[in-house]
Amino acid sequence: MPLFLDIHKQVEGATADAVAGAHIKDLEFQGRYGVKYLKYWLDESSGTIFCLVEAPDKESAERVHREAHGLVADEIHEVSEFS
Amino acid sequence: MPLFLDIHKQVEGATADAVAGAHIKDLEFQGRYGVKYLKYWLDESSGTIFCLVEAPDKESAERVHREAHGLVADEIHEVSEFS
Repeated sequence: MPLFLDIHKQVEGATADAVAGAHIKDLEFQGRYGVKYLKYWLDESSGTIFCLVEAPDKESAERVHREAHGLVADEIHEVSEFS
Repeated sequence: MPLFLDIHKQVEGATADAVAGAHIKDLEFQGRYGVKYLKYWLDESSGTIFCLVEAPDKESAERVHREAHGLVADEIHEVSEFS
């Protein structure tokens, strides 16, 4: 399945607790669209959030964020992962 | 150890092979500064690279990139990881 990394910039009130709450909502909605939010990283000082997500396409990943909590990403990149 | 996610934007010639070559150089240099480059994600279509790295501080992570291949990131964020 395609892999995407999205970026949310300058999110106000992006505390660990607030973002965890939004993530739980993503997990509740994602099954409807064949999406799997895998991990996220939070830079609380700048309000930046990165989400790693498997999805059939970019639009499905975005749709989950929109329906779950309305906080859609500023950028979404289809990526390959390497280690 | 602190965790950082950096972003390289609009990198010209950022093919999977070229980025793999640069990553190997990071691995060669990182031990000098107590840095560990863990994973990276490549969006070849836009030339965007995201690197996940453990480092004592932001400057040490950047120093490895600079000395290994000179391609320093456009942004580097100290992050907490959640899943």
